[in-house]
Amino acid sequence: MRQRILVIGGLAAGPAAASKAKRTALDAEVILFEQGEHISSGICEVPYYISNIITNADKLSILTPLEFERTRGVKVHTQHRVEEIQPLKKRIVVRDVYREQLHRFEYDKLILATGSKARSLGLAGEQGRNVFHVKSLADGLAIKRYVDDEKPARAVIIGGGYVGLEMCEAFRTLGIETTLLHRDELPLSKLEPDSRMAVLQEFKDHGVVFQRKQSVKALNVDGSGKVVEVVTNTGTFQTDLLLLALGVEPNIELAKSIHVQQGASGGIMTDQRQTSSVDSIYAAGDCCEVKNLVNNRWMYAPLATYAARQGRVAGENAAGGAAIFKGAIRAVAVKVFGLEVASAGLSSSEAEESGIQPVIEHVTSDSKIPFYPGNEKICITVIADKKSRRLIGFNIVGGAGSALRANVMGVALQQRMTVDEVAKLDLLYSPPFSPLWDPFLVAAHQLSKRLDSRNGF
Amino acid sequence: MRQRILVIGGLAAGPAAASKAKRTALDAEVILFEQGEHISSGICEVPYYISNIITNADKLSILTPLEFERTRGVKVHTQHRVEEIQPLKKRIVVRDVYREQLHRFEYDKLILATGSKARSLGLAGEQGRNVFHVKSLADGLAIKRYVDDEKPARAVIIGGGYVGLEMCEAFRTLGIETTLLHRDELPLSKLEPDSRMAVLQEFKDHGVVFQRKQSVKALNVDGSGKVVEVVTNTGTFQTDLLLLALGVEPNIELAKSIHVQQGASGGIMTDQRQTSSVDSIYAAGDCCEVKNLVNNRWMYAPLATYAARQGRVAGENAAGGAAIFKGAIRAVAVKVFGLEVASAGLSSSEAEESGIQPVIEHVTSDSKIPFYPGNEKICITVIADKKSRRLIGFNIVGGAGSALRANVMGVALQQRMTVDEVAKLDLLYSPPFSPLWDPFLVAAHQLSKRLDSRNGF
Repeated sequence: MRQRILVIGGLAAGPAAASKAKRTALDAEVILFEQGEHISSGICEVPYYISNIITNADKLSILTPLEFERTRGVKVHTQHRVEEIQPLKKRIVVRDVYREQLHRFEYDKLILATGSKARSLGLAGEQGRNVFHVKSLADGLAIKRYVDDEKPARAVIIGGGYVGLEMCEAFRTLGIETTLLHRDELPLSKLEPDSRMAVLQEFKDHGVVFQRKQSVKALNVDGSGKVVEVVTNTGTFQTDLLLLALGVEPNIELAKSIHVQQGASGGIMTDQRQTSSVDSIYAAGDCCEVKNLVNNRWMYAPLATYAARQGRVAGENAAGGAAIFKGAIRAVAVKVFGLEVASAGLSSSEAEESGIQPVIEHVTSDSKIPFYPGNEKICITVIADKKSRRLIGFNIVGGAGSALRANVMGVALQQRMTVDEVAKLDLLYSPPFSPLWDPFLVAAHQLSKRLDSRNGF
Repeated sequence: MRQRILVIGGLAAGPAAASKAKRTALDAEVILFEQGEHISSGICEVPYYISNIITNADKLSILTPLEFERTRGVKVHTQHRVEEIQPLKKRIVVRDVYREQLHRFEYDKLILATGSKARSLGLAGEQGRNVFHVKSLADGLAIKRYVDDEKPARAVIIGGGYVGLEMCEAFRTLGIETTLLHRDELPLSKLEPDSRMAVLQEFKDHGVVFQRKQSVKALNVDGSGKVVEVVTNTGTFQTDLLLLALGVEPNIELAKSIHVQQGASGGIMTDQRQTSSVDSIYAAGDCCEVKNLVNNRWMYAPLATYAARQGRVAGENAAGGAAIFKGAIRAVAVKVFGLEVASAGLSSSEAEESGIQPVIEHVTSDSKIPFYPGNEKICITVIADKKSRRLIGFNIVGGAGSALRANVMGVALQQRMTVDEVAKLDLLYSPPFSPLWDPFLVAAHQLSKRLDSRNGF
């Protein structure tokens, strides 16, 4: 009998899983269910669509459902919401939202790729017609339409994480007065103070009003159904558009209903083969946890690259393979106006929580030789484990090219190198590209010296 | 009695050695001898000075002799040529070129940092007053003066290595008609064909005339002492300026005179402590060989970064320390007009010479997501050892940012990673910086598949 593999979720992990399952078992029947209209789309590109850097919305979906069916041999059902999983019967119940019909599908293997959902303030007014998230392609299209049609003069963004920062740049590019409300003292709470201060300065230089230590108390809605005021612990902020960038959490209602084991951060626990705790059910992407290769603890790190990889692994294994996703270092980067910000590994506070004593060094270096045009400052924060001298995390903040450099440190981190070893790496030198001593070598060398000194920290 | 450490050579390795020796043994007397006028200068910056990208010649020397003495506590003698080493008496004989006097200096430790010298054609006319090398700051100043004063309309460059390529760009930037004569079919003989073809295309796009398979037979000199014609196996090339970029060879007349052991490529053999075969004599920089960490063979790789590192190690050890320079992967990069070219490790032919069966994959990828502005093609050639699946070398050719990416692969190479491990690296993704699958991951993945297939090569 023909093997049937069902995949729930069509954004990142789901299509990767379905494609790989079909490629692995050519005779299997693979069916993908997605409750929305689009599949195979990311949200990483949405801020650049809103700011008109990416001009064609068609480019935001990699493949239409039809193209996906044709090229991958996977059957796709969009606007189909899976409402129930019956693990003992190995069956799911699916609602065709468009036709308002219920269907049942049996499976041999089931892959959960239900993704994440935007966090909510839990306040009245959040459904206002000028209130947006950046969580789907549909969100992106809606923001774009609102901006084009209603030409908001002011925007308030709540949440100073990666998406909040990208949206600050997008709105400022469009000439919108932008206020960012953040819960902490400085934006990007997982980074070290020096990096966060640099981002704050970049905000100031580009006219973003940053409001620190904010806790939102109420949203005031006008007669037309728009939020016009955001009331916080420190004041009232008037706005024409409210963007909620509060982060995401795993979307696991379905998984919970069948008592799939969850991790400490609420995501689905899997093993390295992306197997869940329930028989014949795999999980991949933003609904799952990811093993942090630096401290070997599971974390919640909803990144597109991990979704794609976990998807492939889940798909291959559901089809009978033995693939492995070992984990990740949480390598992330964001462009904030002229700044590139990248980080990976543990922050100093995460290190402490893991029982590691962090030693930190902050270095400002030239990106090229000092007198070469285009030379800019690059700020590097490196964190080592005092005991083992291993590199355990870093931040990089600087001008063009800084993010591309970050992966160099990322490989060193994944290879569990000590800072002494990093300081001796053979990195290239040519005046248009770098100074004689690459900024990483300088940072690692300084940190190595700090580890040697008894009074250095 | 006060320890005396003498250093011969003042460009890169010498100053690094002298500084480090003094820092290591504060009470030692450290004296540096340099036959030229300048110390602490590189030649990597010279092409950018000639093309007016670096506008101030003062910037080409990091420190003047006086500054060096003051800040480093090292005594500096410029325009002093060491004429003899007497190892049994631990003494050197030095000629003060300016005053035409001979002096003797005894040493406890001696560091040879005599550098390299430009290769010669061995033809009459090579001393013509419009014939130049790019081997010293003085060369750079002379070329600049000649170009400014005599405004040459045409230049011929002999040698299509890194310096030849940089000078092509410099001359074209100045509007000079430029012809490059190269011995091989394509420029950059140590790279793989795909990379070399890309450089050739860039030449064509920027009006450099590339002449392949050239062997120079004669230089015709006019009555004013200028070379006006270069005669080769295929024709006669008229010119107003001749630049010889034939590469360099170790400058080891002094070392040879005392029978210091040499390596296969002619450089001074040292151990990892930069100790030579002669008692109390160390060596560092372009006069030495370097251990290639990929195949553990000694090679000649006269790069500024190695000179600085070997210098530091020699200086520390001469002063009583126990520092080590393990070797290098020959990470090099060059800008050729809009192209960035980087490579490291072994070429496919070097692999074969080392008894390694190379498997090669060539991949062309997007540098960012396809629809993000500034996305350019990046071409990656990766080479693995068929047996161990280890990455053993790579070339990268592409637009802005390509060279900065190269170090990522460089770290993987130094860590002796297999291509399968490289394909699983966690590299960052954000639309302004890279595609979802970083070009290296694509290249490593393709190479991994090629290694799996029996008929793939």
